[in-house]
Amino acid sequence: MKIDVLTLFPEMFTGPMTQSMIGKAIEQERIEFDTLDFRQFANNKHNHVDDYPFGGGAGMLLKVEPIDLALQALEEKHPDTKKRVILLDPAGKTFTQKDAEELAEEEHLIFICGHYEGYDERIKTYVTDEYSIGDFVLTGGELGAMVMIDATARLLPDVLGNAQSAIGDSHSTGLLEHPQYTRPRVYKDMEVPEVLFSGNHKKIAEWQQKESLRKTYRRRPDLLEKYSLSKEEERVLSEIIKEEK
Amino acid sequence: MKIDVLTLFPEMFTGPMTQSMIGKAIEQERIEFDTLDFRQFANNKHNHVDDYPFGGGAGMLLKVEPIDLALQALEEKHPDTKKRVILLDPAGKTFTQKDAEELAEEEHLIFICGHYEGYDERIKTYVTDEYSIGDFVLTGGELGAMVMIDATARLLPDVLGNAQSAIGDSHSTGLLEHPQYTRPRVYKDMEVPEVLFSGNHKKIAEWQQKESLRKTYRRRPDLLEKYSLSKEEERVLSEIIKEEK
Repeated sequence: MKIDVLTLFPEMFTGPMTQSMIGKAIEQERIEFDTLDFRQFANNKHNHVDDYPFGGGAGMLLKVEPIDLALQALEEKHPDTKKRVILLDPAGKTFTQKDAEELAEEEHLIFICGHYEGYDERIKTYVTDEYSIGDFVLTGGELGAMVMIDATARLLPDVLGNAQSAIGDSHSTGLLEHPQYTRPRVYKDMEVPEVLFSGNHKKIAEWQQKESLRKTYRRRPDLLEKYSLSKEEERVLSEIIKEEK
Repeated sequence: MKIDVLTLFPEMFTGPMTQSMIGKAIEQERIEFDTLDFRQFANNKHNHVDDYPFGGGAGMLLKVEPIDLALQALEEKHPDTKKRVILLDPAGKTFTQKDAEELAEEEHLIFICGHYEGYDERIKTYVTDEYSIGDFVLTGGELGAMVMIDATARLLPDVLGNAQSAIGDSHSTGLLEHPQYTRPRVYKDMEVPEVLFSGNHKKIAEWQQKESLRKTYRRRPDLLEKYSLSKEEERVLSEIIKEEK
C-alpha cells in the first residue's frame, strides 16, 4: 500500500511512523509512506498557504491552490495508482472500523491535513472522502491521519505479529471484548475469575461470550442495536439483563 | 497543566509534542509534559511487561504490576497534584469535545497507553477514567492519548494564537461549521458565494447560520437531535428541509 500525507508539519509523523508495528510495516516495505509539505506550492513570496476568510471571522483558512498543486504533483509522480484522497475534517464522516477495513483494500491513500481555523470549501472538490475521527476538535488533521493510517495498516496482511489477534478485537466483532487476565493469579487482593482455570474450553468460551455481551450492554448499548444477535446470544443477553437489574 | 504518559514507545510522542501549537504550549511551559516508559517496572530478568492470557486466546496482555508501580512512582514524584488517571481502551467512554472541555480544567492528567492484544482487567482498578477515541482499533493507546492531549490542550488559555478561534468550531457549538472561503475569489471555475462580498454583516451571519444548519442536517442529523434549536433556527431548518427535498 502507498500512503502519502499532505501536511505543513511532516516532522509530526516521524515518531509515530517509525515506532511499533506501523514502523515495522514501513521498514519491511509493506507500506510505502511519504509526507509532502505543501508549503512548497504556496506560489507567493512569503510562502503563505493561508489567508483571511471572506465575509470576516476569526482565524485563517487554508487556500485551495497549494492543495490543488500538491495533488497534481502526486498525480504526476504516481500516474498509475488508484487513489483515495481523504480530507481530515471535523464535518466529515465519522471514521469507524468498517472504514478501516474498506481502506485496507485500497492501493494508494492520500491524506490532506489542514491546520489553522479551517479550509477554503473548494478544496473539497479535489477529494474522494471527508473523514472525522470523532466529535472533538484538534489543532490540525495530522493526528487524525495518523489514527486512520494506524487503524488501516494494522489490517494489512502480515503487519500484526499474530494474524489472529485482530479478529476478536472490540469493534471488529461489533461487540466490546470480554475482560482478560494474565499472571499473577492473585495481585494484591485481586483474583482472576475461577472459570479461566477450569480447563473446560466450552465453559471458558461461554463465559467470554457472556462477559463480552455484558460489557457491551453496560457501556455501549448503542452497539447492541446495530448488532444482529444469534438465538443463543439473545438468550444470554436476557439472562444478563435480569442479573444486572 | 501537568501531563504524564505511561508508554512503551515514548519516542512516538517526540514529533507530535514538539510541533505546532502543542509544541509551543510545552515550550512556553503552559503544559509540563513527560513520558514514563513503564518497562523499567517490569521486575523480571527479561523486562517483560506482557504475558499470555489465562484461559487461552491469541496475543499477549499487559500485566498489572508494571502499571501499578509506575503510577506509584508518579504519586511519589507529584504527591500534591489532583490526578485524573486515564486508560485508553476501545471499550472506554467515547471521547468528545465535552470531555476535552472538562479535562482542560484539570491539574494533572495521566494517560496509560497499552499495546499488545489487551490489558489485564485489574489495571482498570487503578484508573479514574476509561476513554476510547472512536469505534476503531489501533495498535496501541499512544495515538489516542495524543488526540486527547491535543483536543484538551488547545482549550487552555493562550494556547491557540487567536483565543476567539476555538469558539465557532464544529463540535464546540453542537453544529458543524458553515463553509468558509478565502482568496482568490475565483479559482479555476469555482466562485465564492456572492453574499460574502455584500458587506452586509447581518446577511452574512444569516447565510453562515443557515449553511451551518444545512451541513449538519445533511451530514450529521444525529447532532441536531442533541442540539436545542432557537425559534429562529427552527424556522431556518424547516426552510432548509423544504429546499433539500
